Amino acid sequence: MFDKSTYSNRRKALKTKGLTGIALILGNMEAPMNYRDNTYHFRQDSNFLYFFGLDFPGLAGIVDFDSGEDFIFGNDVDIEDIIWMGPQVTLQENAAKAGITNTAPFAKVFDLVKAAKDAGRKVHFLPPYRAENKLLLENLLGTSAQSINTHASLDLIKAVISLREVKEAQEVEEIKKACATGYQMHVAAMKMALPGNWEQKIAGTIEGIALAGGGMTSFPIILSMNGETLHNHDHSQILQEGRLMLCDAGAESLLHYASDFTRTTPVGGKFTQKQREIYEIVLAANNTATALSKPGVTYLSVHLAACEVLAAGLKDLGLMKGDVKEAVKNGAHAMFLPHGLGHMMGLDVHDMEDLGQIYVGYDDEVRPVDQFGTAYLRMGKRLKPGYVITNEPGCYFIPALIDKWQAEGINKDFINFDKVNEYRDFGGIRLEDDILITETGAEIIGERVPITPEEIEAVVAKG
Amino acid sequence: MFDKSTYSNRRKALKTKGLTGIALILGNMEAPMNYRDNTYHFRQDSNFLYFFGLDFPGLAGIVDFDSGEDFIFGNDVDIEDIIWMGPQVTLQENAAKAGITNTAPFAKVFDLVKAAKDAGRKVHFLPPYRAENKLLLENLLGTSAQSINTHASLDLIKAVISLREVKEAQEVEEIKKACATGYQMHVAAMKMALPGNWEQKIAGTIEGIALAGGGMTSFPIILSMNGETLHNHDHSQILQEGRLMLCDAGAESLLHYASDFTRTTPVGGKFTQKQREIYEIVLAANNTATALSKPGVTYLSVHLAACEVLAAGLKDLGLMKGDVKEAVKNGAHAMFLPHGLGHMMGLDVHDMEDLGQIYVGYDDEVRPVDQFGTAYLRMGKRLKPGYVITNEPGCYFIPALIDKWQAEGINKDFINFDKVNEYRDFGGIRLEDDILITETGAEIIGERVPITPEEIEAVVAKG
Repeated sequence: MFDKSTYSNRRKALKTKGLTGIALILGNMEAPMNYRDNTYHFRQDSNFLYFFGLDFPGLAGIVDFDSGEDFIFGNDVDIEDIIWMGPQVTLQENAAKAGITNTAPFAKVFDLVKAAKDAGRKVHFLPPYRAENKLLLENLLGTSAQSINTHASLDLIKAVISLREVKEAQEVEEIKKACATGYQMHVAAMKMALPGNWEQKIAGTIEGIALAGGGMTSFPIILSMNGETLHNHDHSQILQEGRLMLCDAGAESLLHYASDFTRTTPVGGKFTQKQREIYEIVLAANNTATALSKPGVTYLSVHLAACEVLAAGLKDLGLMKGDVKEAVKNGAHAMFLPHGLGHMMGLDVHDMEDLGQIYVGYDDEVRPVDQFGTAYLRMGKRLKPGYVITNEPGCYFIPALIDKWQAEGINKDFINFDKVNEYRDFGGIRLEDDILITETGAEIIGERVPITPEEIEAVVAKG
Repeated sequence: MFDKSTYSNRRKALKTKGLTGIALILGNMEAPMNYRDNTYHFRQDSNFLYFFGLDFPGLAGIVDFDSGEDFIFGNDVDIEDIIWMGPQVTLQENAAKAGITNTAPFAKVFDLVKAAKDAGRKVHFLPPYRAENKLLLENLLGTSAQSINTHASLDLIKAVISLREVKEAQEVEEIKKACATGYQMHVAAMKMALPGNWEQKIAGTIEGIALAGGGMTSFPIILSMNGETLHNHDHSQILQEGRLMLCDAGAESLLHYASDFTRTTPVGGKFTQKQREIYEIVLAANNTATALSKPGVTYLSVHLAACEVLAAGLKDLGLMKGDVKEAVKNGAHAMFLPHGLGHMMGLDVHDMEDLGQIYVGYDDEVRPVDQFGTAYLRMGKRLKPGYVITNEPGCYFIPALIDKWQAEGINKDFINFDKVNEYRDFGGIRLEDDILITETGAEIIGERVPITPEEIEAVVAKG
């Protein structure tokens, strides 16, 4: 945990956002794998971590906007259980670490919520994503679990985002630790990018590096020769010479801050000419995006600038044609790059995703764009110092998408489909760094994972 | 998956158990970590795997006892999604792998269940352990999610146990694969049992070996210098010379069969005289248990025989006293071994735990024992060929338990508390193998993980 003043200050800041009533912030419970007592690694809810810091199951927190008081609810371990569990810290001692003196057994949260409701006070809560907490909220509030998310508090959502989106210096330090583990993971994966290796063996090995570092992976690892399949969690293939291995993976720090890197390595360690040409374009798009990112600039404009670098490069190779700016305006680049440039990152790898992309990545000024490709950009609004964002351009050759666009003549003025079809078996390249917006620009967080073709080839060669 | 006839035959066997109506067997859904789309590794429900084999989310199966038909419900991937997910196998093709021709979109399961209920037919289901499936059953059956478990079908529970408890030869082969990965995990942990190493680094590294083998760990790893804390998932300590490191860990095979081994290694690789004396007693208890296990014998009697070996050994060391058989009869050994000798193992590491220990481990003849220690024995009934069981005696020095018993004079005729108090900082030893009951006896599954003090010391020394 951070120092207790961290959590007190965050709750204090939340109380300045003009809300009344109470905010009920539920911790997570254990998540069963294949029977009740066989559980996954415990992952605390990120909002609970942010305001209360305590990293174990069975807790709920309340912030009272009217009285200014804070509460933590949870159960102390039974004296009999100490035989099995060893000496335990009391809830009161734990709560003190979060700067809280008001504690009570978990069941008391029902009384406090009921009293608030009976008094006609508003009970704010954030949208639950685990069914256990949906059922708990049903019990607490009398609102059906099936429809509970529609009753989440938009005022609380916006207040929480306004705090969590700007990272404290100590949060950036935690992200740096996650990045250091991510660095090790990616270098290990590169070294294993050899013909005959099983994708799952590599993915499992680097997940082990995350776990040995003390955290989990920050999201399910993507590691595949089919980098063009964007939603790909299959690791069943055996690596083949001449293909590319795309690896998108990150770790959590001990305090559950994320890292998220992507690197693409030629199986066997040597880029072909064709691979290197595309690779250099994606790398240029990545470097351009970091160079352009600074306070006051919209990340939507950075996204579009990166797309222009991509389109210009593909035009030089004869894969695209016509005016580059017009091509990007028409979304022609999106056949090669159908996703967004990046997303906020913090306690969640897609930070605060379940609070709503529309509130996290956009605002009243910068609105989401309704065009294939840019529509998937998770983060578009103006950058501020303290934002942590991923920068992850890519270039993919997706046969189903190529066929669809060619058949329907989509953007045929900007794409040379004949040439594109020579790349059908290419796969995909993505290059992702995590960047911090500073007062004057942006910096890559932590030591940059090897990224130039020469660096990548050297890592594999060193083995 | 196994061959499709495997699943057809299992469902056919289920239909011979005298049930009427339909059995509704739900697959698992994705389990969110910190937001809806950031999920844990998918773990299919074990009963669904047993009868339907398909290992992906969003499925439900129905076995119709009256018509003899089988159904699988699930949704095919949308054509648009193929752009993101790559080419997909249809539900019909997947269902065929399980020997099933009746498939329908997931929503149709509501129609079929409603039709069965309207016709006054019984809808059997097994007790759900994930809140998502409790909510789904509430929706399907109109029974509150909060109380759904009390409506699970005892007839179906007993029928499923009668099938799953006897392992097919191909299931034993899968368990062997899980054991081979478990072997690697334990040898790796032993090699890292050196002063200055962080417990979490070792636990994470060996979890990585499980993942690199293609499965997950079969349960959350226990790895600690505080082996006497039985419910211990803390890995925060730095290993110290002179202490013991207890490691209880296993892997899943690709088809989700479990292994489960425990070894105890002296930090630095050399047993002290005191450690070796206790270690040899636990090892003798373990070897005795395997030697005594055979068809027709109750595992309760094997448990008690292992306890007698323990008590006799502790008497030789002056820690216990009096008549050994009387001591065990009175449960005096349970201060040192408060848990049971073992449990069934298969698709779950505690096989079928949520179907109920009373049905899995006991029957009308062999009933659970209500005495501290033996009460925690998960498996007591007569052994049959094809049973797979863990054999895991231990010896622990639990300060809180020692103090309680000494203060209350519990079993003071059998325990030399003065001597016991010399071992307060000892920690705990557990030695666990997985055994298969054969026609004539029992055999350890797979190559036995190094277990004699000499073998353990040699592994650490080799490094």
